Amino acid sequence: MAGSSFGNLFRITTFGESHGAALGAVVDGCPAGLSLSEEDIQPFLDRRRPGQSGITTSRKESDRIRILSGVFEGKTTGTPIAFLMENEDHHSADYSNIADKFRPGHADFCFEEKYGFRDYRGGGRSSGRETAARVAGGALAIRLLKEFGISVCAYTSSIGDVEAPFTDREEILKNPVFMPDKEAAEKAVELIKKVAGEKDSVGGCITCFADGLPAGLGEPVFEKLDALLSHALVSVGAVKGIEIGDGFLAAGPSSRGSVNNDEFMMENGVVRKKTNHSGGVLGGISDGSRLITRVAIKPTPSIARAQKTVTKDKEETEILIHGRHDPVVVPRAVVVVECMTALVLADLLLMNATSKLENLKKIYGNENTLPPA
Amino acid sequence: MAGSSFGNLFRITTFGESHGAALGAVVDGCPAGLSLSEEDIQPFLDRRRPGQSGITTSRKESDRIRILSGVFEGKTTGTPIAFLMENEDHHSADYSNIADKFRPGHADFCFEEKYGFRDYRGGGRSSGRETAARVAGGALAIRLLKEFGISVCAYTSSIGDVEAPFTDREEILKNPVFMPDKEAAEKAVELIKKVAGEKDSVGGCITCFADGLPAGLGEPVFEKLDALLSHALVSVGAVKGIEIGDGFLAAGPSSRGSVNNDEFMMENGVVRKKTNHSGGVLGGISDGSRLITRVAIKPTPSIARAQKTVTKDKEETEILIHGRHDPVVVPRAVVVVECMTALVLADLLLMNATSKLENLKKIYGNENTLPPA
Amino acid sequence: MAGSSFGNLFRITTFGESHGAALGAVVDGCPAGLSLSEEDIQPFLDRRRPGQSGITTSRKESDRIRILSGVFEGKTTGTPIAFLMENEDHHSADYSNIADKFRPGHADFCFEEKYGFRDYRGGGRSSGRETAARVAGGALAIRLLKEFGISVCAYTSSIGDVEAPFTDREEILKNPVFMPDKEAAEKAVELIKKVAGEKDSVGGCITCFADGLPAGLGEPVFEKLDALLSHALVSVGAVKGIEIGDGFLAAGPSSRGSVNNDEFMMENGVVRKKTNHSGGVLGGISDGSRLITRVAIKPTPSIARAQKTVTKDKEETEILIHGRHDPVVVPRAVVVVECMTALVLADLLLMNATSKLENLKKIYGNENTLPPA
Amino acid sequence: MAGSSFGNLFRITTFGESHGAALGAVVDGCPAGLSLSEEDIQPFLDRRRPGQSGITTSRKESDRIRILSGVFEGKTTGTPIAFLMENEDHHSADYSNIADKFRPGHADFCFEEKYGFRDYRGGGRSSGRETAARVAGGALAIRLLKEFGISVCAYTSSIGDVEAPFTDREEILKNPVFMPDKEAAEKAVELIKKVAGEKDSVGGCITCFADGLPAGLGEPVFEKLDALLSHALVSVGAVKGIEIGDGFLAAGPSSRGSVNNDEFMMENGVVRKKTNHSGGVLGGISDGSRLITRVAIKPTPSIARAQKTVTKDKEETEILIHGRHDPVVVPRAVVVVECMTALVLADLLLMNATSKLENLKKIYGNENTLPPA
Repeated sequence: MAGSSFGNLFRITTFGESHGAALGAVVDGCPAGLSLSEEDIQPFLDRRRPGQSGITTSRKESDRIRILSGVFEGKTTGTPIAFLMENEDHHSADYSNIADKFRPGHADFCFEEKYGFRDYRGGGRSSGRETAARVAGGALAIRLLKEFGISVCAYTSSIGDVEAPFTDREEILKNPVFMPDKEAAEKAVELIKKVAGEKDSVGGCITCFADGLPAGLGEPVFEKLDALLSHALVSVGAVKGIEIGDGFLAAGPSSRGSVNNDEFMMENGVVRKKTNHSGGVLGGISDGSRLITRVAIKPTPSIARAQKTVTKDKEETEILIHGRHDPVVVPRAVVVVECMTALVLADLLLMNATSKLENLKKIYGNENTLPPA
Repeated sequence: MAGSSFGNLFRITTFGESHGAALGAVVDGCPAGLSLSEEDIQPFLDRRRPGQSGITTSRKESDRIRILSGVFEGKTTGTPIAFLMENEDHHSADYSNIADKFRPGHADFCFEEKYGFRDYRGGGRSSGRETAARVAGGALAIRLLKEFGISVCAYTSSIGDVEAPFTDREEILKNPVFMPDKEAAEKAVELIKKVAGEKDSVGGCITCFADGLPAGLGEPVFEKLDALLSHALVSVGAVKGIEIGDGFLAAGPSSRGSVNNDEFMMENGVVRKKTNHSGGVLGGISDGSRLITRVAIKPTPSIARAQKTVTKDKEETEILIHGRHDPVVVPRAVVVVECMTALVLADLLLMNATSKLENLKKIYGNENTLPPA
Repeated sequence: MAGSSFGNLFRITTFGESHGAALGAVVDGCPAGLSLSEEDIQPFLDRRRPGQSGITTSRKESDRIRILSGVFEGKTTGTPIAFLMENEDHHSADYSNIADKFRPGHADFCFEEKYGFRDYRGGGRSSGRETAARVAGGALAIRLLKEFGISVCAYTSSIGDVEAPFTDREEILKNPVFMPDKEAAEKAVELIKKVAGEKDSVGGCITCFADGLPAGLGEPVFEKLDALLSHALVSVGAVKGIEIGDGFLAAGPSSRGSVNNDEFMMENGVVRKKTNHSGGVLGGISDGSRLITRVAIKPTPSIARAQKTVTKDKEETEILIHGRHDPVVVPRAVVVVECMTALVLADLLLMNATSKLENLKKIYGNENTLPPA
Repeated sequence: MAGSSFGNLFRITTFGESHGAALGAVVDGCPAGLSLSEEDIQPFLDRRRPGQSGITTSRKESDRIRILSGVFEGKTTGTPIAFLMENEDHHSADYSNIADKFRPGHADFCFEEKYGFRDYRGGGRSSGRETAARVAGGALAIRLLKEFGISVCAYTSSIGDVEAPFTDREEILKNPVFMPDKEAAEKAVELIKKVAGEKDSVGGCITCFADGLPAGLGEPVFEKLDALLSHALVSVGAVKGIEIGDGFLAAGPSSRGSVNNDEFMMENGVVRKKTNHSGGVLGGISDGSRLITRVAIKPTPSIARAQKTVTKDKEETEILIHGRHDPVVVPRAVVVVECMTALVLADLLLMNATSKLENLKKIYGNENTLPPA
């Protein structure tokens, strides 16, 4: 059971290795009648692409997306939508160095133990490149959510010791670290360059908002909105923690029930909360306010220093990882967080459609009037 | 789609409301041949039970477990194992207060929006009491893991500003807050009493270890070990965040790749890591070292103060929640964290069984020698 | 993976052995707001119960149903609905005869090979008694379908060489073999008595109709309406074949495309078919006409004659099965076929709810108007 | 929920429309370490391909398979294996005829009702061409089963009134109708030509064997071997019925329990059955003898005669379907039946791996000996 699918009703299945023939995703369960083209997807992939500035790897990945199925005359047909990205020039490199040694901080050792051998080219299936397929599916989810006035927005909230205040949403896509504050972004770029100069790497945090959610999304007990988000976001490589709303602060010294509870009030005839410590989720179900999560991303494990490790044949050795690697993966992960969040929301939007009889009556009426043939 | 099942191969389905007739769980997929009786399960439920000290609610819940199926002559048969706990005296209370008002910090409003109405008695399905069914299933998972030398241990690592160092594993079950340090436990009890006196509540953190895991558990991409743990643990009510290994520290100011990477070495012929910043997971797969997670629990939302809220009929009002409620739910959640962790590990142990052809050959041999009839 | 769940959105999980403590079912995903009580379920269980006439076993099974959860103030709450039937006097029998020998035509040998041992009391999990739990869940499905004018009707269409024409729907519940023709029913009873006198058993066929289905139920490719029905019905013990519509006749000598194709026409402004060779399904999707299936049930394997077999210790021997057993299981399986059909239809009704964007707009509107808190 | 996946552990997801850009399949859960190349898959696709004789459509479909992922150095890696077949020249045809009219016997009307519109080019997703993707995945399953000495063999057992005895297994691949009897094959070809001359079509039956199965495959209750086979085979377009073992004969006039029960005996120290009326399945679990199923295939719905129908705009009309169509689809479906059977068997082989504790001990031993880091 290889676990390459996610979602119950809006379900993505991904495939592909970093240096294999192609990467792809199949989304099954997207409702029919949604207008869709490659132009809806490509911009999200472009945000994930490396080589966009001095601070990310210069490896060329065009990630040109093709939609192979499930769209006819510009609209989704209700059948599976397959996305394909062919990999380019993936044959030439020399992997002799990492083929026999386990890179610290990477999954090499674990894959070898689990499967008996591994595709060592660029990390194979465990490469960050795998997230490109998630982004394709997530961009489709974002397209669907838009129909209902639901939007998702992720950004880099910190890199190392540089914290970015939420100054300006428009700023996010204007700087190479995707921070909502220009000054912080400049400091972050400085830090990244310094760290790279030290042949080291650094981590950071990504915050994600979703607005426009109706109350009622998420299923009690195991398929809670926050539980599925945690599943989705921690499944992104390098994520080591997640918070919903106040997160660890809610468990901390200064927190009390009297503070943490969000009181309800009426506003223009609508039930609202005075505060949003919950981050938009109560009992695992959306409460109609802004959904807020934050994830922690570890420093890139590939660093340009010699590290101690062992070989496949169980001998101690040193490894020096060649090639250019991002000294920080946080910026490139921003769009991945956004897309994984959207996949969860689209799935729960569909799951909630059958929560009450009243909903089904809106679709089917009280009775099918066809007499039997 | 109500989402009351969890797990792929070792799969739990729970049912029951706080004040309904009974709570229960069905575990499907437990391998045949495991010795099992109610005595393997009951002690875990007893740890979750309230009324054990002055700091928890005095509500009486005997939670006497019955195994209804799946066990014959003291061993599991491979068929579903059903657990049942009948609820006691669940008819007398007066719920008129909460029937029409939404309790802040609770799921009342969300259930009403989602389902059109709700079972308001004690929170119904969204009550913390629902976790008793998880504990029954989790205790079974712990029983199974024991066969393979795998153990799980959770404890309260902080309540409010009281942090508990890991002084003594034996101490955990000796104090009412389940802390591994006696002195910290005493301070925590003091704090809880003080907070209760202020008609308020407080949160805290739970840390969980698992030892004895083979390397290789967890599936790449979406069914990663850490992703499933996050799903499982954040699905527990009141959990607002989770960390794996160094968690948010790994994303912080002082973290660098050169520090965060755990170098490999050999020890008695076995591949080991010099450090364990990863918390036992690399690329979503167990790396053979101790599995470490930490979760944040918010303060109990039920507090004995008047709070502002709205009614079902959308009028602003005040609510005063009657009855005794735990001023902190952290201690009672400890065994729930342990059990949810065990459910994930049991599931992944089974999922990993078919990861390589070599494993299947150990079971089936190279060829079935029966000629066709 | 023990496979005790069925359905995607309207999902039943069953548990329990023939002679264990209890049998039960949990249905997760039933929409909230459906009025429900034990009286909606019990009549279906009563139809399955033995001891109702001279032709079925006189074993006493009261099968008194209890609803343990998911219903509040007479309506479903959207949370899992648990059904429980405690088994009665299940301790006294002497099973030494079958404990060590494999009954021909039963699953004894297969369970022993699969699990290493088995609960031999009355067949354990493989007993026909397991279907009582399915009937409880199926009766709930029938209750839900009724809201949309969808009805399901199964009956015995043949036993041995006695074929029953569809003379009178009302007749079905009036005779002990559940045939829609009184004369045929009398002949069938004669046959059964004769076969029983010969210490033998006989099989037969059950036909099932569903009326009132909207066109559009069923998902292309793997979750087709007819594929799910086949899965559901063949999962009932003793079923050895299934036909949809014309079934094997459509593949036979006299069939041609020009005959088998059902032409479309208009009737009162509605698209209708002139004939119904398809049995209500085209391309796996309901076409708005009557859904028709037929299943083949083998003769009861428990017969009162000595049969050759082997022991657990692999020695050849004879077995003589004691106790009274139905010489035909067809009549008792009628309600099971009806219930399994209803489970599939309820599931597909929910699955189809999200097939097109237009349906979701009916539920959610174009936009959630709540501004972020 | 579009239902384009099948299987629990060995899981196939397919995508693609008849005249879209490409067809494909992703198989997730194939164990690592299996040697595999395109040459293992292509021959199965070639058997399904049209245009191989005068009796099938001359439409050109090269169906050249590419493996995009999951294979490294000639072996499966345990990660998803993606198969791709690009469609050729799919733009030129004129579909104005069928775009607005519902073809009798096809799913056109049902798709229109379900999704609000449809990809009418060659039937879109409901085209028989969709089965090519299943064949790719099934060929992989056959490759896996071979490792355990399990083989699957399907053949045409009848077309119209021509029945083929099982004379010679080698003959199956030698004639265009895939019958195991040369003479019958010649008669069948005659019949097909005659029917085609009459602008009509004909159906038939396919029988499928599997040999070498260990006893124990299949899960009790809902995931029975025969239930999953029925699901799998009836999900193939045009299949209208299925039998396991004696099938409808077991329910018929001449059948009795004393005949239908297969007695057990010992043979060379192995438990065997004297007869095989069960078709290799008892209680839903393989019994170690040959697995036998038979399916009924309806006549091709596309015939070259004018048929009455209605338009999308609900007006009565006539339709004349252009282009060449197979007057019988049975021969091309033979390899599809074989492949669907293999998908079920591979899945159950994996599912059964965790049925008993003893199996897991063979993989994991009693205890993981790594001390915690």
